Amino acid sequence: MELHAVAGLPEIRPGDDIAELVADRATLEAGDVLTVASTIVSKTEDRAVDLEEFPVSGRAAEIADRLEGITGDEKDPRFAQAVLEESTELLIDAPFLLTETRFGHICVNAGIDRSNVPDNDILLLPKRPAESAERIRSGLEDRGIEDVAVVVTDTCGRPFRHGQRGVALGWAGMPASRDWRGETDRDGHELGVTVQSVVDELAAAANLVTGEGDGGTPAVVVRDWEFGDHGGSDELFRSVEDDLIRQALREWRFDE
Amino acid sequence: MELHAVAGLPEIRPGDDIAELVADRATLEAGDVLTVASTIVSKTEDRAVDLEEFPVSGRAAEIADRLEGITGDEKDPRFAQAVLEESTELLIDAPFLLTETRFGHICVNAGIDRSNVPDNDILLLPKRPAESAERIRSGLEDRGIEDVAVVVTDTCGRPFRHGQRGVALGWAGMPASRDWRGETDRDGHELGVTVQSVVDELAAAANLVTGEGDGGTPAVVVRDWEFGDHGGSDELFRSVEDDLIRQALREWRFDE
Repeated sequence: MELHAVAGLPEIRPGDDIAELVADRATLEAGDVLTVASTIVSKTEDRAVDLEEFPVSGRAAEIADRLEGITGDEKDPRFAQAVLEESTELLIDAPFLLTETRFGHICVNAGIDRSNVPDNDILLLPKRPAESAERIRSGLEDRGIEDVAVVVTDTCGRPFRHGQRGVALGWAGMPASRDWRGETDRDGHELGVTVQSVVDELAAAANLVTGEGDGGTPAVVVRDWEFGDHGGSDELFRSVEDDLIRQALREWRFDE
Repeated sequence: MELHAVAGLPEIRPGDDIAELVADRATLEAGDVLTVASTIVSKTEDRAVDLEEFPVSGRAAEIADRLEGITGDEKDPRFAQAVLEESTELLIDAPFLLTETRFGHICVNAGIDRSNVPDNDILLLPKRPAESAERIRSGLEDRGIEDVAVVVTDTCGRPFRHGQRGVALGWAGMPASRDWRGETDRDGHELGVTVQSVVDELAAAANLVTGEGDGGTPAVVVRDWEFGDHGGSDELFRSVEDDLIRQALREWRFDE
């Protein structure tokens, strides 16, 4: 398997066509996966916005006030409002905000970024990353580049383990997961692994070569890799019903 | 970045020398990372064992009985005993066992595997995977192969997202994480990413090429990749104090 960062992408602006910008700078082959950081997808989709676009509700004011009291850091209630508007559920409301975004991804502050936005206050995640991935994939097809899967990525923390790692937000042209259920080891025993989250592993691999900040290269081509002859599943985000941790969080409140 | 599975490894047995087996089959260069699946590390360390080695305590009998009642599946109390002996804390005791292993990793059933063990009942994780990684690294050095980092990997599920992905259990010759704190984006804003869990991303990338079962290739060489000029941290496993999810789980009990 090989991963190559796409070199020379310009600063991305609203309306830019990522498929065109990548196709002009990289040779893509059938079977490749193109990973694209959500930051640049968001920028093309006009998701860099100012905090003044988020008039503060009573709930946002209350949340910001409580967080300020707990952390001792100044909290802008308009930021809390933006997080609420991007989310369907607040899983943790103190000492930080862990929410489920409108497209099912669970992360801190609804994934809203305060860096990487030169002309605005904040950068929201793409509204529907699966559609973004599909649009980039179609754009490649329009240029005669067939059979390239696209994964829109972000970085994200997690319970139990320190640090952030690359994760997939949306994908097109491949399943999210390899389904190994029913497959056996050399001796005929059923495998312990059941479902392998391939899009997340691709996002993690890509994140090793993208970097952040000044030297950032937000698009990566993955080559010489095969999904293989396995069942596929497109479910990546768990529902509350099959996630005990989410159920536990519903019954818990941070104790100041 | 390139990843190559090490081809032609034999079925691994107790006492086998992984450094030797890999060095005989792959050319390793300074700066490479060698990832090794914990399954083969465990086998060399005599961690394939039989259930009769786990005489059942009252607590294990109670746990197995309760799980049997909830799931309707037969549960061997000796397996519950093995999980307890491998763990320092039970985070979830029903409808499945989520525990912290003795070396700090949190996973279902203390990572005990019932597949991939031809001659025994179960395969325990390596006792101290960081020491295992260090031993393999030293073994490579003994053969004149210098400056190769080693990551012992496993696959593991997680809250919020379906599917398993590769994770690091132990590592040697590199930090666990890149520390980006204090670094800035193109416009001088502090980055949203703070600590990047590099060993987990390497494990995830490697898991894309290792496969499971019949075609499994448990060792992978990662090349043309750089840790880069960043601070490093060796903390991968969170403590209870800085993990709200663990705190929430302590106050929660599965409701039958």
